[in-house]
This record gives sequence, structure tokens and C-alpha cells, in this order.
Amino acid sequence: MGRGRLEAFSDGVIAIIITIMVLELRVPHGDDLAALGGLWPVFFSYVLSYVYLGIYWNNHHHMLQATHRVTGGILWANLHLLFWLSLFPFVTAWMSENHFAPVPTALYGGVLLLAAIAYYILQRTIMAAQGPDSLLARAVGRDLKGKLSPLAYVIAIALACVTPALAWVFYAGVALIWLIPDKRIERVLPDEAGGGE
Amino acid sequence: MGRGRLEAFSDGVIAIIITIMVLELRVPHGDDLAALGGLWPVFFSYVLSYVYLGIYWNNHHHMLQATHRVTGGILWANLHLLFWLSLFPFVTAWMSENHFAPVPTALYGGVLLLAAIAYYILQRTIMAAQGPDSLLARAVGRDLKGKLSPLAYVIAIALACVTPALAWVFYAGVALIWLIPDKRIERVLPDEAGGGE
Amino acid sequence: MGRGRLEAFSDGVIAIIITIMVLELRVPHGDDLAALGGLWPVFFSYVLSYVYLGIYWNNHHHMLQATHRVTGGILWANLHLLFWLSLFPFVTAWMSENHFAPVPTALYGGVLLLAAIAYYILQRTIMAAQGPDSLLARAVGRDLKGKLSPLAYVIAIALACVTPALAWVFYAGVALIWLIPDKRIERVLPDEAGGGE
Amino acid sequence: MGRGRLEAFSDGVIAIIITIMVLELRVPHGDDLAALGGLWPVFFSYVLSYVYLGIYWNNHHHMLQATHRVTGGILWANLHLLFWLSLFPFVTAWMSENHFAPVPTALYGGVLLLAAIAYYILQRTIMAAQGPDSLLARAVGRDLKGKLSPLAYVIAIALACVTPALAWVFYAGVALIWLIPDKRIERVLPDEAGGGE
Repeated sequence: MGRGRLEAFSDGVIAIIITIMVLELRVPHGDDLAALGGLWPVFFSYVLSYVYLGIYWNNHHHMLQATHRVTGGILWANLHLLFWLSLFPFVTAWMSENHFAPVPTALYGGVLLLAAIAYYILQRTIMAAQGPDSLLARAVGRDLKGKLSPLAYVIAIALACVTPALAWVFYAGVALIWLIPDKRIERVLPDEAGGGE
Repeated sequence: MGRGRLEAFSDGVIAIIITIMVLELRVPHGDDLAALGGLWPVFFSYVLSYVYLGIYWNNHHHMLQATHRVTGGILWANLHLLFWLSLFPFVTAWMSENHFAPVPTALYGGVLLLAAIAYYILQRTIMAAQGPDSLLARAVGRDLKGKLSPLAYVIAIALACVTPALAWVFYAGVALIWLIPDKRIERVLPDEAGGGE
Repeated sequence: MGRGRLEAFSDGVIAIIITIMVLELRVPHGDDLAALGGLWPVFFSYVLSYVYLGIYWNNHHHMLQATHRVTGGILWANLHLLFWLSLFPFVTAWMSENHFAPVPTALYGGVLLLAAIAYYILQRTIMAAQGPDSLLARAVGRDLKGKLSPLAYVIAIALACVTPALAWVFYAGVALIWLIPDKRIERVLPDEAGGGE
Repeated sequence: MGRGRLEAFSDGVIAIIITIMVLELRVPHGDDLAALGGLWPVFFSYVLSYVYLGIYWNNHHHMLQATHRVTGGILWANLHLLFWLSLFPFVTAWMSENHFAPVPTALYGGVLLLAAIAYYILQRTIMAAQGPDSLLARAVGRDLKGKLSPLAYVIAIALACVTPALAWVFYAGVALIWLIPDKRIERVLPDEAGGGE
């Protein structure tokens, strides 16, 4: 399978990003519950970023399921997506260590936005390589979720400068919407989805 | 094989968690045996967590062996299990750096408990997807070990608040019981187990 | 496929190198844009090294596509290439933390040069194992890019000692030239390239 | 292939161990050649450990080539080997940061010895599972190198307590002997070795 190495490399990078994020959960100095309690901003931010990376891994998995021809353009569009995902540990740490201050919270949204745009570019690149009548093109359809998410991030970035807590509501809300894996691709790929999802 | 990428991603995450734990084994300042001796709590905790992660990897391997249909629910149940496993380096470090103080030792048990529950949920999710008459359902059977382990962790957590050393006896005891790979699945999968285990 | 494990191991190492580099992007102390601004040398160096590693992964991928026989020599030539790539995080960090001082900038070029030489040795080793009339030999052809890049690095290293900024122009320029994946191999591998690239 | 996941997991762990070792090559404070020069003990130790891990990966690769039946015992013997390999970054760092003091240099040899023993156990476990007449049993033969290396490590550990430099000669010497991949397995596996090595 031509997409095998693309999948393996992406899996490797995402697996490492997820695990490196946990390094930010630094061992507290005390040994009681109070010391542990001080970690809540880092812990919750870790959960949010973990869920986002899980969503990207999941949808990436579904999208490549419908990819049969891998071109040089797809390889670079994929590396471009992984670049923005690789910044998750940095922005997660900066945001949580500063207890959700405005600028770090907005930057977190900025990286979410750029990752979403990179995902969109990758999707378009794959669709262009598979032809306009491909399974992926039919599966993606109007792609309402994919188009609304960047809009939500833009609003959240603006909100972050005033009320960072509201930005978090948007970040968590978009994650919740995406938690459901992309049923559209499963729907048009019934045979493969059986054993091959 | 549809489960290939699920296995590869899980392997990657578990491999990184294991290796990142060793970073907690910080280089001591002296260059003699006394300096090395001060590392024993970190070293023994590393061994215990390494064994636990080895057990999870091993049983995960056996369970997916009997999985033929991967659904979105399985992907998320698996990410949920990996989430709790990803906290092993943190709780291992906190427990060992505080020389097995009550709260960190109890928290270690808490993460063991949550990982065990996540494993149980993953097993149920896979069994539901394969149908009630699947190989996995027959292989798992009454699942005595899977049901007793969480109970042992709960007792250990309670004990940790009073006598952390006793909690360790439970943690190590459960690990020993699980060290034997899941013979049940090997038993009902004789053909595949030959070359495919 | 005999080359499978070679690819998987190389992918793993490159994925980890890329992700470890991002650890150098340390969380700044302030929580405003000024604090973030101080990171620009680290960020731009990260982007350059990320692109270089992407190029190596991409071309490595293409080269192994045309490799059908893996020998012990190829395994070691590959480990040799990975050795120099593994020094990217170190030289990137040293260069960027010293704001592109002459010696660190020259050393960065030195590692680029040694990686390019290692890649050339790997290519020769693979070609020798496949026979003089192999697909790879025909695909690589005169290999103008492969021969000019080391020359550019040597010039850049010399320039770095005087005007580091000029060295950067060379580093970035060579990266741009290589950004285009190796069309030569795609050209002579039309059938496989369809689904197998 | 039943051994696929065993190989993938081992590759992942070894790839991460190699890459994590490079983190010990900390960015020096100055920006000149003198600052770089202070790193030579760390750099040379990194090279030695990198070569050792490359040897283990290489021979592991060859050994699994001749493995057709993977049992629970093999999985644990493999995890046991990976455990000792996972201590390479720690002992490499301790030895090099103390400029090859006696105790750290002896401990380095101790981990080399334990890894060699673990490799021997893994080889025996695989041979037992494949049957006495297996390809691997014939390929390994008298295994002179495998039996002499532990002896060399024991001598080196004793020497380290007196003259650490002599211990290094042994460590480097054994590595040189092993640099040649295991031709014995290639010899008895001619068909598979062609494309499948």
C-alpha cells in the first residue's frame, strides 16, 4: 500500500507529540493534594490538546482510508499539517503555565486555526489527486464542520483578548463537535469500513 | 488489515511512554556508588511501571489479535486507554521522588485503576463490535483477573493513605498475576496463534 | 517487503528528531507578545530544520521505493545518515540560542554537509546492491542537485565565519531547491508511482 | 506476519532510545569552538552507544528474520532486552558527564553485559520456540561472538575500577567486532535474504 509509510510517519509524529505534552505535567514539589491541585490548568489543557490530537489522528485515519494515490504534493501537505500539530505542546504549555492569560490563549487558538487550515489544504490536495469523482470527494460533501471550525477559532481568538474563559468554551465546543468520527467516509466506504476502517 | 494502524499508533505511544519514563532516572551528581544508591526508589518504580506497560502492551496485542472489525468507538476507547497510560511517567516520578509518600502512592494506584477501567471499556467495546459470539467473547470468558485487579487497586489506594509499603505489595502482586500473557485468547485462536500471535 | 523494517525504523527516528526539536522552543517567561517575539531565532531555525528533515524523509521515501534488495551495508549506511540527522536538534539549538553567531552557524552547515555526504553514500550503497542497470541508477542519473548541494554547504560554512546571514541564504536556498520531491524516480517508476509512491 | 508488531514495537523503542540520548548533548553556554570542545566526552560516548544500539537493532532484525512463531515467552524476553537497552541513555550520560570516572564506566559495562545476557536469553527463547532444527539454530551455530562478548564486558568492568581508559578499549573493540552484521543468518537464509533481509 502506497499510503502505508505516510500513515506510519504521521502516526509516529502524532504519538510523540501527545507523549511529549505530558512532559509539561511537571512533578510538583510537595507530596500532598495541595501540590497536586496546583496542576489543574496544566492537566485540563493537556486533556483538551490530547482530545484535539486524537480527533486529528482519527480523521486523518479516515481520510487516508479513501486515498489511493499518494503524490509529492500530498506528502508536503501532510508535513505542513504535522508542523502545526507539532506546536501543540508549546502553545499548550505557554497557555497553561500562564493560567490562560489573553495572549497565550489567543495563540493557542491561532495554532488550532492554522492546523485546521492545513488539514483543509491536505484534504483538497488528496481530492485533487484522486479526481473530482473520488470516494473522498463524495464522502466529504459540503464539509460544514470543516468550514465552521476555522470561523469558530477566529471568533475565539478575538474573544481570548478580552475574556479568555469564553475562548475556552469555543475551543472545547469545537472539540466536542469533532469527537464524533467522520461518519461520511464510513457511509460511502461500506465494504472497506467493515474490516478496514 | 484494518487494525494495523490502531496497533501501530498504540505501539508508538506505549514505546514512547516507556522510554520517556527513563528520563526521570536523572544523572546523579556524584560519581560513586553512594550517588547511584540514592536512585533506588526511582529505579524500582521504573521497573514496576515498565512491567505494567509491558503487560498492557502484551494483552493489548492479544486482544487486537481477536479483533476483526475496528469502529470509531474502538478508536476512542483505545485513545482513552492510552490517555491513562500516558500519565504513568508523571505518577511514577511523583511517587518515587517523594520516596513513596502516602498521597503520591495513592495517586499511582488511582492511575492504575483508571487504566484498568479503560482497558475493560475497550474490551467491552471490541466485543460489542465483534458480536456476542465472537472469538474474543469466548476467549475472555468470565475475566476473573480483569475483575479482581480493580478491586485490588481500590484496596491498595486505601492502604496507601496509611501504609504506602502495603500498597506497593498490592501493585507488585497484581503485576505478577498479569505477567502471564492471556492464554485464554491463545487457546481459542490455535491456528492464528501459531504464526500470528 | 524486505525494506519495510528499514523504512519503519527510519521513519521512527526522523519523526522523533522532528518532534524533539520543538522541545527547544521553550516556554517564555512573560505572557505577552514581547515574550513571544524573543523566540523568533528559535522558531525560524526550527522551520528550516523541519523543512530539511522533511526533504530527507521525502527523498529517502522515494529512494527506498526503488530499492528491492536490502543488504547489511545498506542498513549501516542508513544508520550513518540517521546519525547526522540526529544531530539536527543540537546544532539547531546551539545556532538559534546564540542568535546565529559565526561558529554555531558554521557548525549547522557542517552537519548539513555531513548528512548530505551520508545520503550520497547511502544512495551509492543501494545502487551497488541493485546492480548498475537498476531503476534507481537510471532514476538518479547525473544527480546534479546531489552534487551541487555539498558545494553550496562548503561555501556557506566559509561565509558563516564572516557573515552568518549570508550562510543562512545558502541554507535556505538549498532547501528551496530540494523542496520539489525527486521527480526523476517518479518518472522511471510510472506504474508503481501510481499507487505505490 | 506474526512478528510484525514485535518488530514495530522494538523498532519504536530503539529509535526513541537513540534519539533521547542526543538530548544529553546539551547546548553549551559559549558560542565558540572552545565551548564545543568541552562536549567531546559526551559526543564520543554518544557515538559508542549509538553504534551499540545500531548493532542490537541490526542483529535483532536478522534474528527475527528467522523467527516464524512468536510466543508469550518471546514477547517477554524481548521486553527484557529492551529494558536494559532503555538504560543506555542514563549510563551513557552518567559516564560522560563524569569524564569516565571508574564507577560510571564500570556501570556502563554492567548494562552492556546485562543487555548481552538478555539478547542471549531472547535468542534461546526463540530457538526453543522454533524447534531444535530451526533455521535460527543452524544459523547461530556455536555463537562464538555471543559467548566472548560477555566475557570481554566482565574483564572491562574489572579494568574500569582501575584504568577506565582500558575498559573503553574493550567496549569499543567489542563494538567493532559486532559491526559486521550476522552473516551466519544471511548464509542459511539465501532465498529470503535476497529481498527479505
